[in-house]
Amino acid sequence: MKTPKWINEAPKEGSFRSIFKYGDPMGFKHPNDRLIDELKKKFNLSDNSFTEMESTGNNIISHNIESKLSIEQVEKFISISGKENVSSKEYDRLYYSTGKTVEEAMNLRRSIIKTITDLVVHPRNKSEISAIVIYCNEQRIPIYTFGGGSSVNFGFYPEKGGITIVMNTHLNNIISFNETNQTVRVESGMMGPDFEEALNNAPKLYNAKTSFTCGHFPQSFEYSTVGGWFITLGSGQQSSYYGDAGELVLGVEMISPTGNIITKEYPATANGPKILDIIKGSEGIYGIIVELTWKIYKYMPDNRQRFGYIFPNWKAGVDACREISQGEFGMPAVFRISDAEETHHGLKLYGIENTIFDKIMTFRAYKPMERCLFLGTSDGDKHFTKNIKRKVHNICKKHGAMNLTSFPVKKWEPGRYRDPYLREDLMDYGIIIDTLETGVSWDQVHEVHQQVREFIKSRPNTICMTHASHFYAQGTNLYFIFIIKEADIDAYREFQEAIIDKIHKSGGSLSHHHGVGRMVAKWMPEHLGEEQMNVLKALKKHFDPNNIMNPGKQLLNQ
Amino acid sequence: MKTPKWINEAPKEGSFRSIFKYGDPMGFKHPNDRLIDELKKKFNLSDNSFTEMESTGNNIISHNIESKLSIEQVEKFISISGKENVSSKEYDRLYYSTGKTVEEAMNLRRSIIKTITDLVVHPRNKSEISAIVIYCNEQRIPIYTFGGGSSVNFGFYPEKGGITIVMNTHLNNIISFNETNQTVRVESGMMGPDFEEALNNAPKLYNAKTSFTCGHFPQSFEYSTVGGWFITLGSGQQSSYYGDAGELVLGVEMISPTGNIITKEYPATANGPKILDIIKGSEGIYGIIVELTWKIYKYMPDNRQRFGYIFPNWKAGVDACREISQGEFGMPAVFRISDAEETHHGLKLYGIENTIFDKIMTFRAYKPMERCLFLGTSDGDKHFTKNIKRKVHNICKKHGAMNLTSFPVKKWEPGRYRDPYLREDLMDYGIIIDTLETGVSWDQVHEVHQQVREFIKSRPNTICMTHASHFYAQGTNLYFIFIIKEADIDAYREFQEAIIDKIHKSGGSLSHHHGVGRMVAKWMPEHLGEEQMNVLKALKKHFDPNNIMNPGKQLLNQ
Repeated sequence: MKTPKWINEAPKEGSFRSIFKYGDPMGFKHPNDRLIDELKKKFNLSDNSFTEMESTGNNIISHNIESKLSIEQVEKFISISGKENVSSKEYDRLYYSTGKTVEEAMNLRRSIIKTITDLVVHPRNKSEISAIVIYCNEQRIPIYTFGGGSSVNFGFYPEKGGITIVMNTHLNNIISFNETNQTVRVESGMMGPDFEEALNNAPKLYNAKTSFTCGHFPQSFEYSTVGGWFITLGSGQQSSYYGDAGELVLGVEMISPTGNIITKEYPATANGPKILDIIKGSEGIYGIIVELTWKIYKYMPDNRQRFGYIFPNWKAGVDACREISQGEFGMPAVFRISDAEETHHGLKLYGIENTIFDKIMTFRAYKPMERCLFLGTSDGDKHFTKNIKRKVHNICKKHGAMNLTSFPVKKWEPGRYRDPYLREDLMDYGIIIDTLETGVSWDQVHEVHQQVREFIKSRPNTICMTHASHFYAQGTNLYFIFIIKEADIDAYREFQEAIIDKIHKSGGSLSHHHGVGRMVAKWMPEHLGEEQMNVLKALKKHFDPNNIMNPGKQLLNQ
Repeated sequence: MKTPKWINEAPKEGSFRSIFKYGDPMGFKHPNDRLIDELKKKFNLSDNSFTEMESTGNNIISHNIESKLSIEQVEKFISISGKENVSSKEYDRLYYSTGKTVEEAMNLRRSIIKTITDLVVHPRNKSEISAIVIYCNEQRIPIYTFGGGSSVNFGFYPEKGGITIVMNTHLNNIISFNETNQTVRVESGMMGPDFEEALNNAPKLYNAKTSFTCGHFPQSFEYSTVGGWFITLGSGQQSSYYGDAGELVLGVEMISPTGNIITKEYPATANGPKILDIIKGSEGIYGIIVELTWKIYKYMPDNRQRFGYIFPNWKAGVDACREISQGEFGMPAVFRISDAEETHHGLKLYGIENTIFDKIMTFRAYKPMERCLFLGTSDGDKHFTKNIKRKVHNICKKHGAMNLTSFPVKKWEPGRYRDPYLREDLMDYGIIIDTLETGVSWDQVHEVHQQVREFIKSRPNTICMTHASHFYAQGTNLYFIFIIKEADIDAYREFQEAIIDKIHKSGGSLSHHHGVGRMVAKWMPEHLGEEQMNVLKALKKHFDPNNIMNPGKQLLNQ
């Protein structure tokens, strides 16, 4: 078999590709031969199918999309943030309007530009943001907030034109470090790696007694901001231990059209409904988060324990995960179980296929396309992490699993943020890889998994891999990864929407950690019901009576 | 010394005392001689001071307080809930209007009746509550909700007259039990002991594989309801491990004037701001919680580990508690450190004074009025609880503590719910015991403790005992218990308000777990600021536009 030709160069400067390509312009993770081999079989492709690339989007952007802002308005923003921090260039306007959905990439590959922001502003501090919000409210100019740009649901799509505020240019510093309270005050535009590096280096930077970690490591970690994590209710890959981003935040400052809010920072209070909780998950439709107080954890990588098991089937694996989650011995940090189809690909990906493990597995009747891979780590105090490893071992054995040692998780860890890079290579040959995800209670996990998977697989020639990777005593999440060959954008969107509909109807939540954005907003009224939507609308009306903050998102037109 | 004469009989039927006395009419916990001895010294009293009781409130209620409801209105409530479930008797009206504040007890001992509810209704089910709320909204009749009646901040005080709905008469059942999800659906009026007993007996009652516990054990456990725990954001004595009542609830049904809300019950979602979080802590001002889904834990009393230490001083004890809370080996369940003055009394109370422990302590220079008592237990898996005990031991030793074994906590446990019974005995002789509490971050714990304590002690002849008993990586709470001799209600209230003011000004939250009610409401605007108060007001306006739900509480007149 011939390895396809992959693009190994950075996208051309000024090109569409430079906008939709994930992450580092020089970052690549090419599909390995085993995956390509699978795809060929699945989609009836030959080596020839991987010689001619479809539109790669490497052409230069050149449109002329008018701005709806007046010269006076633009000058006002310049007067607030300085000429060098305001851009009306078409490239910038498109760049800061674009998230990481497949639909956006498909459009840009075809040089299709939809609505873009009218002006990009990089405020230098929160006072400027305050001034911008006040002015935009007076002038009824919509505001969108760009954190790291990793949204997969059109979270900051400039539906109605207006301006886009970029947070990571200037608002990217740690403001203060409090070792006593184990908290850090941080500007919302700080990117994941900078944040984590500063915490790891706390002894040097802040004269701390020990190193710290932020505990939040979503797949988008390298290209997302602290503020974005919080406001979209994100969950990191170690959330089963550290909690989701909402739980990791103790307080925020938010600037909204009705004023600035600095929430209280008590570890616990009973002073009525907590404003912080009311803001969580509002995805920029109430206001702009400018500062956060983040709860930090001691950084103790030497204490980390790693484990991996293979289960005879999905049912046994899920049962074991539930027993672990309800075991009251503390939670693993990384904690994932793959279904049979994902295991099939995972074993290839993590280099387990054809190893001694594989032979023993097969010999011991862990059958391909039935067996399920389980990976995990535990973080925290040394004896705590060791106890978790021991308990996990006992529970896995009880449910018929075979120990794969720490080998698979060690293979998984280095590539944990790199899967998104696969997307561009595949799409260069017309193949789409995308994901949808949901939160489920334990008693619905099989129903949702089965119905959604069955639906996805009902499309001819479709790969569907599923895992659960965030665990609670009351349930887990399901993360569906599907691979299809599809060139038509409408057909693609129709399929995607049908999957969301199936998730919703089979009993899953609309999202476990990707958020609502514009993509799943239209299911919200049916999902929550009118009474609950009215509560959200009342809050929106309060914070943003003129609907200038990120309009067209979780509440659609309000 | 002569032991004072204590009342050992149930309050007279129909008496004021039968209303303000805490808990079981035949429940008593008389102050022991050591405490009385202290009080005599402190207040310059003699044996004679404990011979003549002040007003005991054992006289029969006989006033004639008019009802503001019309005959038609009363008949409407009768038509909804049945004649036997509606009462306009003065005794019932007073009983269900009265919480457990000292001020209410002082008034009733003097036969002073303030505003009382016009009608008491015991709805039989949630449909009746719905009908009542709709009717009251039409007629603009205020509604107060009586759960177990244990409020210490006038939480259901019928400020503006109207009706009081009693939840624990009929809405006191478990609706369904879900072992897979480890949840139970319960009516909000179920009392603590009934709830816990049902969960402990889950194998028999629900055919469960194991026994369960609710994990929530506030001091008022025996006389409070599941719904009350949640809506006031209560914390139990084991909250450091199990979480507070807000965290223990997965979903609720709330009936409000704008409609019924049944929140979603995913273990985690990112579907925008969570309605459940918005309702938490609203203390009946948005609507009435009729059902809750409670997260349950495995009941494993055999795994419980117990520990006790004496620290040389408060600073060392607090440092150790912080290190435990930030140790990442899991949290103890019961977890309390007493300051020097509370330790002084606690050692007497738990029978440690004059034991071998006392001798060794004193010999080893743990000085009276400096040393601080630490108690704790750990719950959960066997190895998990043992590891916590080991870690706690090492940390306590490191901070100079001496091991007191499990002895003190074993003395504490049986009396854990009984301290409130002391109140009536002391008040029979004109002595007041009361409490106020606050949430604090680690870097403010000493400042708040010192300032509040100093203020309380600035009143001549005042006992002030303080402990911290709910722990988080970011901070803890402070619980102040003060004993004074005071007969004048206004003077008492003035002192109480000055303490709240000091808590507020020194940097503590207005409450860690007692809630707002009417008592601390007037500090809310300054505490939260106008912008945040406006958010709460907008929510109130949405749920209850005519301000009929528990008016006059956390938002005062809105």
